[in-house]
Amino acid sequence: MDATNPGKAPKALVRSRFQVFEDEAEPEKAGERLAALRERLRELELTALIVPRADAFQNEYLPPSEERLAWLTGFTGSAGLLIVFAEEGQRAALFVDGRYTLQAARQVDGEAVEVVPIAEHRPAAWLAERLEAGHVAGVNPWLLTHEAARRYRDALEKAGAGLRFVLPDPVEEIWQDRPAPPDAEVFAHPLRYAGRSVAEKLEEVRATLAEKQVDAALITATDSASWLFNIRSRAIVHNPVVLGMALVPTDAQVRVRLFVRGGGFAPDARAQVEELADILPFEALEEVLASRELAGRRVLVDARSAAARLFALLEQAGAEVVEGEDPCLWPKACKNKVEQAGMRAAHVRDGVAVSRFLAWLEEAAACGEVDEIGAVAKLEELRIDTAEKMGEPLFDISFDTISGAGPNGAIVHYRVTTASNRVLKPGELYLVDSGGQYMDGTTDITRTVFIGPPEMQPAAEQKRHFTLVLKGMIALSRARFPAGTQGRNLDVLARQYLWAAGLDYDHGTGHGVGYFLNVHEGPQSISLRGAAALKPGMITSNEPGYYLEDHYGIRIENLILCTQAEAPEGGEREMLGFETITLAPIDRRLIDVSMLDETELAWLNDYHAQVLRTLLEPLRGLGVEAALCWLKRACMPLGEGRDANVA
Amino acid sequence: MDATNPGKAPKALVRSRFQVFEDEAEPEKAGERLAALRERLRELELTALIVPRADAFQNEYLPPSEERLAWLTGFTGSAGLLIVFAEEGQRAALFVDGRYTLQAARQVDGEAVEVVPIAEHRPAAWLAERLEAGHVAGVNPWLLTHEAARRYRDALEKAGAGLRFVLPDPVEEIWQDRPAPPDAEVFAHPLRYAGRSVAEKLEEVRATLAEKQVDAALITATDSASWLFNIRSRAIVHNPVVLGMALVPTDAQVRVRLFVRGGGFAPDARAQVEELADILPFEALEEVLASRELAGRRVLVDARSAAARLFALLEQAGAEVVEGEDPCLWPKACKNKVEQAGMRAAHVRDGVAVSRFLAWLEEAAACGEVDEIGAVAKLEELRIDTAEKMGEPLFDISFDTISGAGPNGAIVHYRVTTASNRVLKPGELYLVDSGGQYMDGTTDITRTVFIGPPEMQPAAEQKRHFTLVLKGMIALSRARFPAGTQGRNLDVLARQYLWAAGLDYDHGTGHGVGYFLNVHEGPQSISLRGAAALKPGMITSNEPGYYLEDHYGIRIENLILCTQAEAPEGGEREMLGFETITLAPIDRRLIDVSMLDETELAWLNDYHAQVLRTLLEPLRGLGVEAALCWLKRACMPLGEGRDANVA
Repeated sequence: MDATNPGKAPKALVRSRFQVFEDEAEPEKAGERLAALRERLRELELTALIVPRADAFQNEYLPPSEERLAWLTGFTGSAGLLIVFAEEGQRAALFVDGRYTLQAARQVDGEAVEVVPIAEHRPAAWLAERLEAGHVAGVNPWLLTHEAARRYRDALEKAGAGLRFVLPDPVEEIWQDRPAPPDAEVFAHPLRYAGRSVAEKLEEVRATLAEKQVDAALITATDSASWLFNIRSRAIVHNPVVLGMALVPTDAQVRVRLFVRGGGFAPDARAQVEELADILPFEALEEVLASRELAGRRVLVDARSAAARLFALLEQAGAEVVEGEDPCLWPKACKNKVEQAGMRAAHVRDGVAVSRFLAWLEEAAACGEVDEIGAVAKLEELRIDTAEKMGEPLFDISFDTISGAGPNGAIVHYRVTTASNRVLKPGELYLVDSGGQYMDGTTDITRTVFIGPPEMQPAAEQKRHFTLVLKGMIALSRARFPAGTQGRNLDVLARQYLWAAGLDYDHGTGHGVGYFLNVHEGPQSISLRGAAALKPGMITSNEPGYYLEDHYGIRIENLILCTQAEAPEGGEREMLGFETITLAPIDRRLIDVSMLDETELAWLNDYHAQVLRTLLEPLRGLGVEAALCWLKRACMPLGEGRDANVA
Repeated sequence: MDATNPGKAPKALVRSRFQVFEDEAEPEKAGERLAALRERLRELELTALIVPRADAFQNEYLPPSEERLAWLTGFTGSAGLLIVFAEEGQRAALFVDGRYTLQAARQVDGEAVEVVPIAEHRPAAWLAERLEAGHVAGVNPWLLTHEAARRYRDALEKAGAGLRFVLPDPVEEIWQDRPAPPDAEVFAHPLRYAGRSVAEKLEEVRATLAEKQVDAALITATDSASWLFNIRSRAIVHNPVVLGMALVPTDAQVRVRLFVRGGGFAPDARAQVEELADILPFEALEEVLASRELAGRRVLVDARSAAARLFALLEQAGAEVVEGEDPCLWPKACKNKVEQAGMRAAHVRDGVAVSRFLAWLEEAAACGEVDEIGAVAKLEELRIDTAEKMGEPLFDISFDTISGAGPNGAIVHYRVTTASNRVLKPGELYLVDSGGQYMDGTTDITRTVFIGPPEMQPAAEQKRHFTLVLKGMIALSRARFPAGTQGRNLDVLARQYLWAAGLDYDHGTGHGVGYFLNVHEGPQSISLRGAAALKPGMITSNEPGYYLEDHYGIRIENLILCTQAEAPEGGEREMLGFETITLAPIDRRLIDVSMLDETELAWLNDYHAQVLRTLLEPLRGLGVEAALCWLKRACMPLGEGRDANVA
């Protein structure tokens, strides 16, 4: 065993290097803060204020300075929207999705805030119903997309009410001790990782703009700007994006401008960008637009990702706004050969770390000596150690680890805190969903394991549920499909066995994954609604699950790379397929082999053989013999004793 | 054997009772007819004329009086669009989809007409590219939907050109000897078949209108009007719709009006309709709209099925047009219990007829004594005979039988003519896709069989392709899925095995089917694009296929009824599933049993057992012993000799 310290978190452990285990929210202050806000709304003659959980860049993860909802209400989930009414005595409404209804109800003060499930009430319609003719709702136009603003405006105007863009943000006006905005330095993401130069990327983007017959594009998504200029930063936790937007003229003779919020540039990053673009502070964007230099010009903006404020500014500037897809969206999603190689290398490193963790866990947790926070800390420690020893350090984790023992595993987006922390008990299942950020890739892996000594066996029902999930995961891994196939066409492959058993899971099967960027990246997704076509080079997660409330959660997640599939004998058409790039054993104890057919069993045994083959040498190199022996056992073929004369 | 006459069609057989085997088109006259049209266009100062293959009701099947494309060009396919330019020397462009590119090229005079694959060139964009500023294209606004007209107008206006609605139709103006319009009598579809009274249906429709806050709906689809009033006619071949539109006020105190083109009403049909609605000639619709009685009223119309002309008339009438779904669309698609029972009964009758046909075919075709037309005639004769003897006569076939021997089977929408007629040769595959219209249901079934004496075996490749198609058909039949699942989520189930083998088919997997109505009915479909949710009571085809050009076509088609699935043990959620209602054996000779897993084999053997069990007594009742003995052989379980100790 390479690690011997027990994994139970000391009471004082409220954060590891990359993760915080204590909620810093102050729900008890919601009453007074909301009262102050209400007063300000009355001064502004607003009936209500819409407060989206967002920043000007529409990032999913926010810097503390943008956590308006947490500050106002104490709710710390990653998605939500608050509506505050000016009138005294009316509770604010916090809209959250199914992942967060329980958590929100626990976190907020019910006297001040009402939790509304967003699946049952769309906020725009809900608000419209509560407003009368002449009423006006306000919103900070930086905090919602143009498309969302249009939706609110339409709904409110139908009710005879109106939507007003309000700046300065009334929440900011009353927010004393607001944390400082991020101030992280921008650094270069070198070509040996990025695979394509800024010049090449700009050329491709400009070709798209020429095709769309526009004069320029305003690129507002931070992952797009970061990708385009091969730059990164630590402005936002776990997501190494730069807080920047770019104005890219179609004409290559005209300089590109990059507007960046906070932080300076490392010299190499500055040099790399300035070869092709001018760097300006973010505030200069408003000035440029106000200068009317874009008057009469056709400017491409993505209404699904750009803030409403930008549309208003472009309109004032006299520009002709052309709504359309961010031109970086598809080239960023289709990883180039260098990125693909980087992703594979990062997954070897990550697989070594996860295998070390699983080896440690099997031993240490068997008698109830590990809790959820201890497991997170250990996994992080092993990711750091492994990465460092293998020569490519861990930059960050790619999201807050979901570490759910027993019933906590059934909470799909569970985030452990010192309050919720639970011991991993023998006989229970433990779900761990985690990932790393490396300069050469982003990982995201979920494993569910049975906790208990070797002589203890999982219940038949646990195995049945686990195997149903596994069968779906394998079916999607093995899929072949022609170009043009969309995520929503394939999702059923992962669900079919659960559906046949009258079971299901309430989340998508797969999200796109960025390259040393956001762990959630569009346009592709594999879900019942995923409309984007899957293309070679795209990386997506493959993570079916099953959740038995109050008992356990099961999820098995690998990342899969879309590739040209090898043509089978007699094949007439080109097909795409997936290469699984995540490398870590799937708990053999939880598999009911009798439920697998021969192709599924072959896939599983091939996968484990590949895991072992790939991780063997690195583990030897690290000198972690116990983990190595564990891995050999964990990757042993299953079903060997099965009837051999089956076709 | 119940039938002993050989099935080779006599040279003179150019039509059976329900089907025509000779094309009456005159492509050699295209030159002069198009020249006359061009002259007329110049008089009208039009640069071009768009001639959709359609009638005012947007029917799929057209009466001869509406077959503009066939008369102008000789093309007889069921879908197409012609663009004729006024300028001398410019060829007309005939846009057809993949099913018809070969046929169109064969049928038209290439000097006068250019065939354009619609997958490569959208007509609106194609036309816009060829027009200059100031140019005007015309179209008869009865012949395209409002949505299509909008698309053309947008595309042309972007090019600086315009779209003009032209009436009278310039084609009609030059069409001498135009066939008379349909003049079929409208008859009642009695309640014992329809299951719901007109009053009940009207009440449901009105509830929908009230919900949508409109004052009335203009129902323009012929299948909707026929369904709503429980009436049918023979106005259009194979599709027993009434050529009618209805104006339904939301207020139950205001009379409904039904506008019907041609033909009178049988007394019972008239009485049934007049209890709740006034019957007017179709021409009166224009007068009612012109009267401005709808001024200021909110009128619901479906822009995807209603002619552009109606929108123009409503606008002139001062009505506020509310675009939305035809309120009959979903209730018509979700068959009630009586309709479901009728469909099952019709499928027993149809299954007996098809089994008699297949029994006859195996014997008669084994030595090359049957040709495609002979097979169609025989199948039709057996449908008529079986239905009559079983007490519910065959009203019509539900579409022109696709009877494709060898390479002709590879043409997806092949329609046999005396020119293309081919002998069914031993060693080849034969594909037959056919259906019947009965008062209690509409059928649509495809079987592919191997032609040859018992000692002859299909090639391994034929069996492999057939079995890949069969596996997909079985997978869809067995699917379980939650409410809300769309056709595009399930389509992959039918394609997965072909895709894995590098194969595919270029058509949807399933279309909705009407109830003694159109054999193609929306909104549901099972295809990569099918966006409608599947609901209990919907009937859809399940017809994957494989086509090897110049060799053979394979398609296996059953109709499936969407139902609430029985909950499996341990199931937590309600699931939907399918009940297969088509009953006829699947050719055992073409199945490679080693390619089926145990669940597939069990499904197949269960299906054949059900076919035999259900058809046994009716066949006995008909006294057709030879067919009965054949059926017993055809339904024998497969794979009995397989290793028994497989799970």
